[in-house]
Amino acid sequence: MSTEDPEALLDEARKWWTTSIVDIHPGEIAMRGYPIEQLIGRITFPEMIWLMLMGELPTRAKAQLLEAALVSSVDHGPQAPSIAIARMAATCGPGLNGAMASAINVLDDVHGGAGQQCMEIYYEVEAEAGADGDLAKAAATVVARRKEQGLKYFPGFGHRFHPLDPRAPRLLQLVSEAADRGETSGRFAVIGAAVEDALSQGRAKRIPMNIDGATAVVYCELGLPTELGRGVFILSRSVGILAHAWEQTQQGGRIKGPQAKFLNYTYDGPARRDLPEPDQRG
Amino acid sequence: MSTEDPEALLDEARKWWTTSIVDIHPGEIAMRGYPIEQLIGRITFPEMIWLMLMGELPTRAKAQLLEAALVSSVDHGPQAPSIAIARMAATCGPGLNGAMASAINVLDDVHGGAGQQCMEIYYEVEAEAGADGDLAKAAATVVARRKEQGLKYFPGFGHRFHPLDPRAPRLLQLVSEAADRGETSGRFAVIGAAVEDALSQGRAKRIPMNIDGATAVVYCELGLPTELGRGVFILSRSVGILAHAWEQTQQGGRIKGPQAKFLNYTYDGPARRDLPEPDQRG
Amino acid sequence: MSTEDPEALLDEARKWWTTSIVDIHPGEIAMRGYPIEQLIGRITFPEMIWLMLMGELPTRAKAQLLEAALVSSVDHGPQAPSIAIARMAATCGPGLNGAMASAINVLDDVHGGAGQQCMEIYYEVEAEAGADGDLAKAAATVVARRKEQGLKYFPGFGHRFHPLDPRAPRLLQLVSEAADRGETSGRFAVIGAAVEDALSQGRAKRIPMNIDGATAVVYCELGLPTELGRGVFILSRSVGILAHAWEQTQQGGRIKGPQAKFLNYTYDGPARRDLPEPDQRG
Amino acid sequence: MSTEDPEALLDEARKWWTTSIVDIHPGEIAMRGYPIEQLIGRITFPEMIWLMLMGELPTRAKAQLLEAALVSSVDHGPQAPSIAIARMAATCGPGLNGAMASAINVLDDVHGGAGQQCMEIYYEVEAEAGADGDLAKAAATVVARRKEQGLKYFPGFGHRFHPLDPRAPRLLQLVSEAADRGETSGRFAVIGAAVEDALSQGRAKRIPMNIDGATAVVYCELGLPTELGRGVFILSRSVGILAHAWEQTQQGGRIKGPQAKFLNYTYDGPARRDLPEPDQRG
Repeated sequence: MSTEDPEALLDEARKWWTTSIVDIHPGEIAMRGYPIEQLIGRITFPEMIWLMLMGELPTRAKAQLLEAALVSSVDHGPQAPSIAIARMAATCGPGLNGAMASAINVLDDVHGGAGQQCMEIYYEVEAEAGADGDLAKAAATVVARRKEQGLKYFPGFGHRFHPLDPRAPRLLQLVSEAADRGETSGRFAVIGAAVEDALSQGRAKRIPMNIDGATAVVYCELGLPTELGRGVFILSRSVGILAHAWEQTQQGGRIKGPQAKFLNYTYDGPARRDLPEPDQRG
Repeated sequence: MSTEDPEALLDEARKWWTTSIVDIHPGEIAMRGYPIEQLIGRITFPEMIWLMLMGELPTRAKAQLLEAALVSSVDHGPQAPSIAIARMAATCGPGLNGAMASAINVLDDVHGGAGQQCMEIYYEVEAEAGADGDLAKAAATVVARRKEQGLKYFPGFGHRFHPLDPRAPRLLQLVSEAADRGETSGRFAVIGAAVEDALSQGRAKRIPMNIDGATAVVYCELGLPTELGRGVFILSRSVGILAHAWEQTQQGGRIKGPQAKFLNYTYDGPARRDLPEPDQRG
Repeated sequence: MSTEDPEALLDEARKWWTTSIVDIHPGEIAMRGYPIEQLIGRITFPEMIWLMLMGELPTRAKAQLLEAALVSSVDHGPQAPSIAIARMAATCGPGLNGAMASAINVLDDVHGGAGQQCMEIYYEVEAEAGADGDLAKAAATVVARRKEQGLKYFPGFGHRFHPLDPRAPRLLQLVSEAADRGETSGRFAVIGAAVEDALSQGRAKRIPMNIDGATAVVYCELGLPTELGRGVFILSRSVGILAHAWEQTQQGGRIKGPQAKFLNYTYDGPARRDLPEPDQRG
Repeated sequence: MSTEDPEALLDEARKWWTTSIVDIHPGEIAMRGYPIEQLIGRITFPEMIWLMLMGELPTRAKAQLLEAALVSSVDHGPQAPSIAIARMAATCGPGLNGAMASAINVLDDVHGGAGQQCMEIYYEVEAEAGADGDLAKAAATVVARRKEQGLKYFPGFGHRFHPLDPRAPRLLQLVSEAADRGETSGRFAVIGAAVEDALSQGRAKRIPMNIDGATAVVYCELGLPTELGRGVFILSRSVGILAHAWEQTQQGGRIKGPQAKFLNYTYDGPARRDLPEPDQRG
């Protein structure tokens, strides 16, 4: 590199991190081009989330759908591993940031990925149908294809606990009302219903859309990339994670384990044995 | 434990996790007593944050101050370690949850604690002044005390980069307007200004309140415990962390290091040496 | 559940966590059946790692191969995102545990998965060859198959920085010596060489095995499941992560960013613009 | 900066990350000056840990004490929050790296800090005694001082579960034997015993040294800084964390909560209530 122009190298070094999100100069901060002091107090938090993630401001109507989805997913109780982790962590010494990090970290494919996976299915149905296609038929095709591929847990539908998840119909109602007002297409509400039909076909009992299926409808209506479906879910669930970490902090507890001490755990390994000499091992 | 009543033990086991945040039954979810379907679409996301953290709903006016603070702190660019960590992590394989966790984790006392520490100072000024006391005098007393205690970086005031942080005056203006409308006391805006006066006393140049000092004014006006000052800051900064992790994902990159490869790093350790035999070590 | 026997429920609750790793009673701790006081001072740390992960003690010879692999992977400098993250985190306030967590978290598929992926390939070659088969032919088949599947970065071979990774031949030498002494089969050293041949076929320059390819040889010789290849790598790299977090702590620094402040970063987003009224957005 | 010499700036940029741990050039890697290929197969993993953390190689005898301490602390079962977190995380989707990160993160002041805190006390006793001082008297002074300061949980002594922690006497025996051979001073074994005496003074039952108190004796004998006491503990406990995450992976489970589903949790918040209109809130 000794022959290279140092000015050029400096310029390259300055480009190592390049962003279109935020521009900062002494006394100036702009998000996506908007001076921060114009945004504070004039846009809502969900609008800021949208601006940061998508690059442009949403319509008020779309921001309200995003807001409803953010409100809907904040918490599902301490039996969820993410919440239990936040609460246990809060008794081990780190600040709320550490408790939140350990918890948010587990919102991965299995615990936090259903919404994202459901969005992939909805988008696949839309692509399958084509611009003027038959959504019901496309949904049936996609559901059949996924089952053939061995999909075991169909993301967004059914719930181990709720016969009907009370969050889903309320979110769908909001999408439907927005569609009636022409604020959104409503296309993914139709797709979601078609997937539910296809899944429930031939069963005595329907497999109803759950919260992940309903937020996926909202996020697809809003045109979010699927990865951001999970991202926005994490922003929402972070609220519950923080609330539980904080409640646990107030309740106290030191090095709190997962269940009552007297329950302990069960050992099913080898019986007591003596350490063999080195040449008797392996 | 064999002599204990199994019913009593079961009951105790059920109380291991106890919460007043969320109540869940088949088909029912309620946050702080409110059925979730009543909340979705009718309260804002900042109102939900407040309800979850504080247990009751805020007034609209207070929720709007919280919203302004949430909007103000989302991002301060990729030179912040939290943002750089999110971006690097995004090139290493984990999903957005993992990138967010590694980043949020470092919003600890030094990188994420200034707002919380500033709230402690404001509350200390208030306590020092007493109900009818002189806030200016109390601020001077507290500032002097903290300096005596060896406080080196006074949280919430001054900025290594911005001569005047553009977010601070805007937030203070919103507090002031809300106080004029009787929606909040305005007491902590006075305290914040008094601390700035006390800090700037005898200096050629004022040490202006920064974003942490201004959000601390808002959070103290809202009556948040200091720990939640950090908690709410994390909810806000998580938006920037997510946005940068996602932008980096779209830019691509694999195992992206902290700076341009040709800059590399500097080694200042021992020169090359041969491994001594075991008895020559230590 | 009210009709269920409380004793049965308690018993079920006690089985929620079941492990064959560790058995603990007042005054007694046994790992895999061995009383801990027999292990301390009589087995090596790599032997303890093996016992914990695999359930039985290894031969001394196998433990020494594991030890060599653990020694080989501890660090590759601060340009690695994991190390840079540990160092930045150390300037943000959390203890060494937090800095280590943020760093270890990014040892995911891309940054920490090459060894595991390479083991999968070696095991696939072995399965392809069958018990008495031709390893060279099997390696060629597997390499061709992986390329057809679109594998872009062949894990375990080639290095962006080292023409020849000095760790790989040394590890292979140890495997070879152990095989000569009959302490291990040497089969995966042959497979690794065959994969290198297949990859280098028809190229002017060989694509030499790197550290991930060499540790994969060791871990396959030892019969580790592929996931534990990553697990053991993490145990090794954790040492470097800790060392760098600690060195940074001693160097000091507060909220240390990824590169020199004057390099800053580049903004390539929208030019300054004014916030439109709500009805002009979206 | 435009007037500055670009060469000088480049040089400064290259020094942003400076380390004495590892030196890397194409085809060359050296740790603390030692070529990596000389270390692999010739030093033990604990020796490598020491070299990385302390900068020089230990004597074999000191490395063996470190090894014994590393072996002793690997695991204390799934009721420890760190282990439970690792196991729950393993059912949520992330790889072993993510499960380990969420778990290691909670080895903070309360859950992972006792050894470090105990080392601080031992070093304080040593400083109190001075070079030729009376260790018993110094221990009594320090114990009294700490109690006056309100220390509630005396780190390193007593155990909520074990009347006598079986790991402690075994470690102390190894220190004692090494001291008899002149391999270490044995001074901190005396200090540890003196602290135990001082703590137990006037009590019917002694408060025996636990694993944290015993590893603190070892780490002080080895001259580790207190922070590294925690660091080395984390390296040890990471083995148990990995083993449990892996065992849970093999057991299966999806989104596994902290305790049996039928135990659920207890809600003690407000009864059901209807959302008030906005002007009735707060």
